[in-house]
Amino acid sequence: MPGDTAGKTITCKAAVAWDSAQDLTIEDIEVAPPKAHEVRIEIYYTGVCHTDAYTLSGKDPEGAFPIVLGHEGAGIVESVGEGVTNVKPGDHVVALYTPECKECKFCKSGKTNLCGKIRATQGKGVMPDGTSRFKCKGKDLLHFMGTSTFSQYTVVADISVVAITDPAPMDRTCLLGCGITTGYGAAVITANVEEGSNVAIFGAGCVGLSVIQGAVKNKAGKIIVVDVNDKKKEWAEKFGATDFVNPTKLGDQKIQDKLVEMTDGGCDYTFDCTGNVQVMRAALEACHKGWGQSIIIGVAPAGAEISTRPFQLVTGRIWKGCAFGGVKGRTQLPGLVKDYQNGLLKVDEFITHRQPLAKINDAFHDMHAGDCIRCVVNMREA
Amino acid sequence: MPGDTAGKTITCKAAVAWDSAQDLTIEDIEVAPPKAHEVRIEIYYTGVCHTDAYTLSGKDPEGAFPIVLGHEGAGIVESVGEGVTNVKPGDHVVALYTPECKECKFCKSGKTNLCGKIRATQGKGVMPDGTSRFKCKGKDLLHFMGTSTFSQYTVVADISVVAITDPAPMDRTCLLGCGITTGYGAAVITANVEEGSNVAIFGAGCVGLSVIQGAVKNKAGKIIVVDVNDKKKEWAEKFGATDFVNPTKLGDQKIQDKLVEMTDGGCDYTFDCTGNVQVMRAALEACHKGWGQSIIIGVAPAGAEISTRPFQLVTGRIWKGCAFGGVKGRTQLPGLVKDYQNGLLKVDEFITHRQPLAKINDAFHDMHAGDCIRCVVNMREA
Repeated sequence: MPGDTAGKTITCKAAVAWDSAQDLTIEDIEVAPPKAHEVRIEIYYTGVCHTDAYTLSGKDPEGAFPIVLGHEGAGIVESVGEGVTNVKPGDHVVALYTPECKECKFCKSGKTNLCGKIRATQGKGVMPDGTSRFKCKGKDLLHFMGTSTFSQYTVVADISVVAITDPAPMDRTCLLGCGITTGYGAAVITANVEEGSNVAIFGAGCVGLSVIQGAVKNKAGKIIVVDVNDKKKEWAEKFGATDFVNPTKLGDQKIQDKLVEMTDGGCDYTFDCTGNVQVMRAALEACHKGWGQSIIIGVAPAGAEISTRPFQLVTGRIWKGCAFGGVKGRTQLPGLVKDYQNGLLKVDEFITHRQPLAKINDAFHDMHAGDCIRCVVNMREA
Repeated sequence: MPGDTAGKTITCKAAVAWDSAQDLTIEDIEVAPPKAHEVRIEIYYTGVCHTDAYTLSGKDPEGAFPIVLGHEGAGIVESVGEGVTNVKPGDHVVALYTPECKECKFCKSGKTNLCGKIRATQGKGVMPDGTSRFKCKGKDLLHFMGTSTFSQYTVVADISVVAITDPAPMDRTCLLGCGITTGYGAAVITANVEEGSNVAIFGAGCVGLSVIQGAVKNKAGKIIVVDVNDKKKEWAEKFGATDFVNPTKLGDQKIQDKLVEMTDGGCDYTFDCTGNVQVMRAALEACHKGWGQSIIIGVAPAGAEISTRPFQLVTGRIWKGCAFGGVKGRTQLPGLVKDYQNGLLKVDEFITHRQPLAKINDAFHDMHAGDCIRCVVNMREA
C-alpha cells in the first residue's frame, strides 16, 4: 500500500551473500527510505543470472561482501525521494543495472547506452551519495549493480529504473532487466542485423536465444546456432534458428571454417554469448571478409584475453561488443515490452524453472542444469 | 611511342629479386604483350615501401622468388589486350594492388574495397590466367601484388589500373599507389573521422602522416601523433598534428593512459601505422569507452597476434582495420588526385629521397633511415 511506509525504514526478507562461495542466507534486513533522486521498489520477481553466480563465486576481483545480489528484477514503486519525476509510487517498474541519466557525455553522445553518471559509486556497491540503504544485524550491506533485486524492497537511483506502462506480468518483465534485452538488443540495436544477412550465435542460453529473436525480427537469412549441448537444437529452432551446429562433432574441422563453408565466405554477423575467449576468437574468424562483424556479449573470466591475427581486421572484419544489448533502459525498454505484447519477442518460453525466495539457492543450482534457461524467483514467497 | 611495340615482347631493365635477403639485381627482362583484359604499362616512377622490403627479407611466409617487386608505381599505358575498355595507350595511370572489378560479391557489397576477382592468382604471383608475363635468362619471374612496378614495363590486369585524367606529375601520383592513399583513406573513408573528434595516430611515416591529412580534411579536434622518434614531431606538425607524444618518455605511464588523460576519456579514433601488435593494443585501449574506434593499418609480422581484454569491446570500443585505406582504386583514386591539386592533400612533401633504377638498392637503405619518408625511384634512369 503506497504511502503507509513512505519515509520509514522497512524491514523485509532478503537473500544476503555474507561472503564468497557460500550459499545465500535469507535474512530480515532494514531498508532505509530513498534519499533525493532515489526510488524504493517492492520487488515481486527476480531472475537469477550468471553474473550473480560469478560474483558470488568470488572469482570477480571487484566483488565485495556482504552484499545483496540480483539485477534482473521487476516490482512496484513503494516511495520516491525528493526530486524524482520519472516514476511515482504504484508504478510497475523494471530495475536497470545500466542506468540512463540523459545528461552525461555518454547519454548525450547518441552512440552508447553506457551512462557514466553513477558508474563510480555503483561499482563500489553504494548509492550515489556513497552510503548503503541496507542494514542487517547492525552491519551495512553493499548494493549490487545499482539494483540488488534479491531483496523484497530495494533502493535504486531514479536513473536506474523505468516504468512499464503497458500491462505485462512482472514475472515476465523481470527478465527484460538483463538476459533477454541483452541478446535482443545486441541483434536489433548494436548490430542492427540487415535483412537477408547470415548470422551465427555461439551459445544458446537466455542471451543467445534472444539474439535469435532479434535476428528473426530483422529478417536475417541463415540463423546458425552453435552450442556444445545437442539439447539446445530444439530450443534454437523454437526461437527461429535455421541451422544448428555442435562444434564438438566436426572432427578436425574448426567451427569457424564450418561456418565460412555454410555461408559461402563467412557470416555477416556473429555473436558470442558464452564468455569464453576461444569462442570469441572463433566468432570473429567466422565473419565474412570485408564486412563481417562479431559482437562480444558474454562476460569473460577475470584476466582472460581475446586474441587473433590482425590480418583478420585488416581484411575488413569488425570486432565490437555491447553491454545490456546497447539498449538505453529508460528510452528503449518500454519498446521491448511492446514487442513482447505484439508477439515479436518471446519471454514466457524462457521460464523453465521457478523458486520461492526461501529456495533461492536452488535457483542457482537450477541455472547450472543443462535444461534451465531461466529460473524466476517469487520474492513474495519467503 | 604507343603502337610501335604493341603485340611484341619488350626487353627492358628491371630490378629482379632472385632470392630472399639479397640485393635486387638490375637485369634485362622480357615482358610479353598483354593478353585479354590485361594492360602493359611503361612505369616512369615507383615508390619503395616497407611491404617490398618485408617480402624481400624472406620473412613473409607467402613470399616466393624470383620475383619483380614494387607496388607503388605510375606510368603510361603502352598497349592493351583484347576487351580492355577502362584505359587506352597513352593514358597516364597508377597501378592498383587492390583491384576493383565492380562485379564480384565484394565490389557489389558497397561495404569494402577488397575485390575478390583475381585474389587467388595475384596471391600466387601470376596473372589471372595462371602464367607470368616476365622472363629473364630463360626463367619465368613472378609478379608481385598484381603490379610489379620495379620493371620499366609491367603487365597488370585491367581491373588493377586506373587512369589519371587530371594533369599531375607521375613522380607524385606513384605515391598514391600505396602509402598516402592508405593513410588518407583510413581517415576519410574507413573511419570517416567526425568533425571535432579527437584522433591519435601511432607512427609518423608516410601512412601516419597521411592519416593526419585525412583527419585535418575532416576537421578533427585534437590530432595527436605518437612516435618513438622525436624528429617526427616537426613532420607531424607540418602535416597538421596538434600534439606529439614520445611514448618512451612517459616514465611509468602507459601511452594509452596518457592519451585518455589528454582527451578527457579517450580518443574517438586511433590508427595504428606501425605493424607492431603491442602498439595495436595500446591504440585500442586509448579509445573512448562507448564509441572509440581503433583502425589497424600496419602489417604485422607473420604469426604475430593482437590481444586485449574483451571488456574493452564490451564497453563499446570498436576494433577494425583496412587495406589501401578502404579506397576503391578505380572509383575513388581520381578523387584523391583532385584533392592533391586543390591543396587538400600534400604529396610533394613526402619525397625526401630520390634514386635512379640503377641504385634501387640504395632506395631500400634510404627507407630505413629515420629521416626518410619516401624515396621515389626514377625507372628511366637505369
